[in-house]
Amino acid sequence: MQSKSNFKNCLLYVITDEKLGQERSHYEIAKLAIAGGADIIQLRDKSAPGKKMYEDAVKIRKLTGETGTIFIVNDRVDIALASDADGVHVGQNDLPASIIRKLIGDDKILGVSAESVDDAVRAKQDGADYLGVGPVYEARGSKPDTSAPWGLRLLKDVRAAVDLPIVAIGGIKYENAAEVIRAGAHCVSVISAVVSASDIRKATADLRQLIENERSRRDG
Amino acid sequence: MQSKSNFKNCLLYVITDEKLGQERSHYEIAKLAIAGGADIIQLRDKSAPGKKMYEDAVKIRKLTGETGTIFIVNDRVDIALASDADGVHVGQNDLPASIIRKLIGDDKILGVSAESVDDAVRAKQDGADYLGVGPVYEARGSKPDTSAPWGLRLLKDVRAAVDLPIVAIGGIKYENAAEVIRAGAHCVSVISAVVSASDIRKATADLRQLIENERSRRDG
Repeated sequence: MQSKSNFKNCLLYVITDEKLGQERSHYEIAKLAIAGGADIIQLRDKSAPGKKMYEDAVKIRKLTGETGTIFIVNDRVDIALASDADGVHVGQNDLPASIIRKLIGDDKILGVSAESVDDAVRAKQDGADYLGVGPVYEARGSKPDTSAPWGLRLLKDVRAAVDLPIVAIGGIKYENAAEVIRAGAHCVSVISAVVSASDIRKATADLRQLIENERSRRDG
Repeated sequence: MQSKSNFKNCLLYVITDEKLGQERSHYEIAKLAIAGGADIIQLRDKSAPGKKMYEDAVKIRKLTGETGTIFIVNDRVDIALASDADGVHVGQNDLPASIIRKLIGDDKILGVSAESVDDAVRAKQDGADYLGVGPVYEARGSKPDTSAPWGLRLLKDVRAAVDLPIVAIGGIKYENAAEVIRAGAHCVSVISAVVSASDIRKATADLRQLIENERSRRDG
């Protein structure tokens, strides 16, 4: 199992999605993304029955254990526990972070999505180990027109306010990843930029190289 | 918390459903069903986000704790643990029962839906405390025409093969509950027969009385 201390060095966080994966399974997506250098794999499936998601989690846990990749399960704390994932990621509408911390203990990684500085401050108080900050580029419900500059500003504000690793989320791709790093993100998470690529391995490798270059430039 | 040993004396098991509840919440349904004599309340919500389901579970846990009613959470083992429910109920497409037993420990109640004698035998091996057997009257996917006699036969077969409390599930209502008990069920579970009633308390009380009478007649 990967320790939390590795987290701040992570650059690229790939979230699996079979609907966007062009017939490729969660496992196949994970395997190709890991081959391309993904530091973290998140299994995310909002519609699969528990049995299928558990079976996928067990397979990806085995794979990530072999490669030393951090493995996170989205939302389903029970499946994270059952598969011995490294951690769990939740949004503001999922089980409360403070409750999850009690269920998973101190060793597992807890990630929480934050759409505001207040969300981020509360997530840290509730025991989060990292923040998923955004959506940086995707429309946010009722305010579709404000998302791009709003998202970069949010990254800067959260970075200034909360001392936790920041994973930027929401609509990030090769063309805009550099400015996300410049705005303060430690790590970039993607779904479609990698999962929908015809060559997942190459898309992962190219994006990770860009992030690595940009972080070196920023952090010196 | 209710002990498993109470389970075999239970007669009526009410599953909450806000979609069928005519604007009444899970909590309101539970409260009225308990007032009518429900022995067990199961919170079931396949579409609610985790946060809402957790909040509902906490409220129903408090209520059932006060009334001494058994409280079961459907599918979401994490929410059962987080709300300190008495147990969890899963179907064949949910997390495997053997895995859930490890997550919940020995004290909590584990219920498993069985659609065949094989399912029932395996559920007992995997650590189930009771079986949800059916669907007794509802159509089963590809075989809508065979369900009624098939369901009663299944109850008899499972009763003969497996020594666990049997909760009959699927399309049971006042008019057919007696024959379900005669076929060997210990307990009857309902959704719409109670949840969709204009007077939930009365529908619960009437159905429970009928089951009690029929069990007394059967068991002497």
